[in-house]
Amino acid sequence: MDPHSEQRLPLLVVLMAGGGGTRLWPLSRPEQPKQCLPLLGGRSLFESTVDRLSGSVPLEQIFVVSNRHLEPLLRAAATAIPAENFLCEPSPRNTAPAVAYALARLQARHPKFVMACLPSDHYIADTEAFRRLMQAARTLAEKEFLVTLGIAPTGPVTGYGYIEQGEPLPAVDGFPAFRVRRFTEKPGMELAREMVQSGSYTWNSGMFFWRSDVIDTELLRHQPAIGRAVARLTDAFERKDGGAALEKIWAAMPNLSLDYGVLEKSDRVAVLPARGLGWTDIGSWDALVELYQAHPELRTDVPEGHLDAGSKSVTVIRKTGDDRVLATVGLDDVIIVETDEAILICRAGKSQDVRAIAEMAQKRKSGRKPD
Amino acid sequence: MDPHSEQRLPLLVVLMAGGGGTRLWPLSRPEQPKQCLPLLGGRSLFESTVDRLSGSVPLEQIFVVSNRHLEPLLRAAATAIPAENFLCEPSPRNTAPAVAYALARLQARHPKFVMACLPSDHYIADTEAFRRLMQAARTLAEKEFLVTLGIAPTGPVTGYGYIEQGEPLPAVDGFPAFRVRRFTEKPGMELAREMVQSGSYTWNSGMFFWRSDVIDTELLRHQPAIGRAVARLTDAFERKDGGAALEKIWAAMPNLSLDYGVLEKSDRVAVLPARGLGWTDIGSWDALVELYQAHPELRTDVPEGHLDAGSKSVTVIRKTGDDRVLATVGLDDVIIVETDEAILICRAGKSQDVRAIAEMAQKRKSGRKPD
Repeated sequence: MDPHSEQRLPLLVVLMAGGGGTRLWPLSRPEQPKQCLPLLGGRSLFESTVDRLSGSVPLEQIFVVSNRHLEPLLRAAATAIPAENFLCEPSPRNTAPAVAYALARLQARHPKFVMACLPSDHYIADTEAFRRLMQAARTLAEKEFLVTLGIAPTGPVTGYGYIEQGEPLPAVDGFPAFRVRRFTEKPGMELAREMVQSGSYTWNSGMFFWRSDVIDTELLRHQPAIGRAVARLTDAFERKDGGAALEKIWAAMPNLSLDYGVLEKSDRVAVLPARGLGWTDIGSWDALVELYQAHPELRTDVPEGHLDAGSKSVTVIRKTGDDRVLATVGLDDVIIVETDEAILICRAGKSQDVRAIAEMAQKRKSGRKPD
Repeated sequence: MDPHSEQRLPLLVVLMAGGGGTRLWPLSRPEQPKQCLPLLGGRSLFESTVDRLSGSVPLEQIFVVSNRHLEPLLRAAATAIPAENFLCEPSPRNTAPAVAYALARLQARHPKFVMACLPSDHYIADTEAFRRLMQAARTLAEKEFLVTLGIAPTGPVTGYGYIEQGEPLPAVDGFPAFRVRRFTEKPGMELAREMVQSGSYTWNSGMFFWRSDVIDTELLRHQPAIGRAVARLTDAFERKDGGAALEKIWAAMPNLSLDYGVLEKSDRVAVLPARGLGWTDIGSWDALVELYQAHPELRTDVPEGHLDAGSKSVTVIRKTGDDRVLATVGLDDVIIVETDEAILICRAGKSQDVRAIAEMAQKRKSGRKPD
């Protein structure tokens, strides 16, 4: 059935699960960040990500990078993944060090493989379409490309980075593929419109596939310090001495994203444009509300004690221990999120500004602690 | 100075303070209704009403009608008013029984007087103007009219009853006066506009002045059962046996407003149109917000823990014991009121619907109690 089956390298998946974003404040918080919130039919985004992979990737080939605070939570949520597959960052860095760490750990066990680096806090409606695309990405990675999955834009969104397609490559397993010409930071509305109209841009989903030896070489070429760290770490993990080496090497790791440090510099980067996945990064309350509107079955919590008179398009998410009434009167297009620590009242379409509030709230909290 | 001083009847003021309205829900509640809320520079509407009168009416001539629940609160708020001036209704009735009760109590002490019946939960910006108008109303009442103070409309408001002016009467102490042609219930917007444009309508403020013997006669004429009750109660209070008689007579009192029971039927009703008092009944959150906008010095509470990003015209009133953050993002024209029992989020201009919410909340509360 599979023309590659005899010659294929193993596919090892690394889930990035250490993030502690603020965009779903106040529900997401350091102790329970977005990937751990039970937003999808009572299951968390992390659980749902593991579910999505489990049909096509053996669970012992799934690895999870997080930190000492989140690891117990994530282990408990995915008990079928072997305990030794949970990788713990000594302190928060960025994606380049995280990839280096995972690469070293995996290389110590496997001589050569395709590595998929995937976020653990995105939603994909069509699992089958995703699996097919993943197989194509794997095929393209085997051909020594650093492969990015680009999401075909559904509108001129300013909240994502964009990938500009360059020279077309031969189709892969039926999917069109391109070399990447340029990565573009989150654009303004006018530029976003132009890019979407041109048809040659996709959103950067943060889903990457590469061969272990290829990313190793590209790290050494573009970030030699990190590349050398990978070699030393790989040796240490082979000697079963990875823990001590990691502590020492990690401290010297630069705070650098892999996008900036390698992908924007390499000439081996390719993009597979993805259509019809039903993908969202749930990067804001607006995105979650849109998702719930499109897939009402995903929303299983019923807000307790909400009374309304004459409002339209009001979404209420209540996760509180108390029994207060929450009353809305005559509101249009408002998102309300209540927890035991805070209440957020946000105009629909403005939830990108929640991040600023989360920072203010953090400052307020710190400011109130005695010195 | 005062041309009437030698012949004048005493002015006795009866403050109606038993109400338990729901329009400032959730801040107003049965244990602390609107008149007891410290909304005006830290002072309650009741205190502010007593303040307004105290310069021109001796405190021993001010009486307060309330109920057993509120009386302790009101006494504590106005210790300068003699304790025996607090009248306690055995159970909630309407304004006709309340006036009958007060009339009987006052008649038992004073042979003849002018009685002012005033709400205790309104705001009046210009105390001096109010005092002059009150003197004119007293003068007109001495001439055997049932006098209402009408508020000259500032716009086509649908939340008030309207008084239609009839035949002009001779000016009183420099104020124009009219016979009342008709009382009109709260109108629709179109009718309100017509009435305001005609110039011959004022808002019914619920402030009334009449001579004791005149209201006595009018009660006997239009509500003979209540009129006879006044006679029996007056006798009982003269015999110092009022308490027992009140318990018995009160039970048979009809639930009737004085407006409907007497004023709409009598041909002795006059109106003094009031201009420039700066009056508001603070009958909704919108009204309170407008008042605070016009008189910022009246607002002394600072909402704790409110963070905002990009909102305009958001009013936050927080009276909670907890320390949660309240965050608003991108909102326009919203009123937020938070207490330990409820949180209200109301579009400005829609606060008349808060009453419906208060009823729902009450039902919810009752429904949760075991039978």
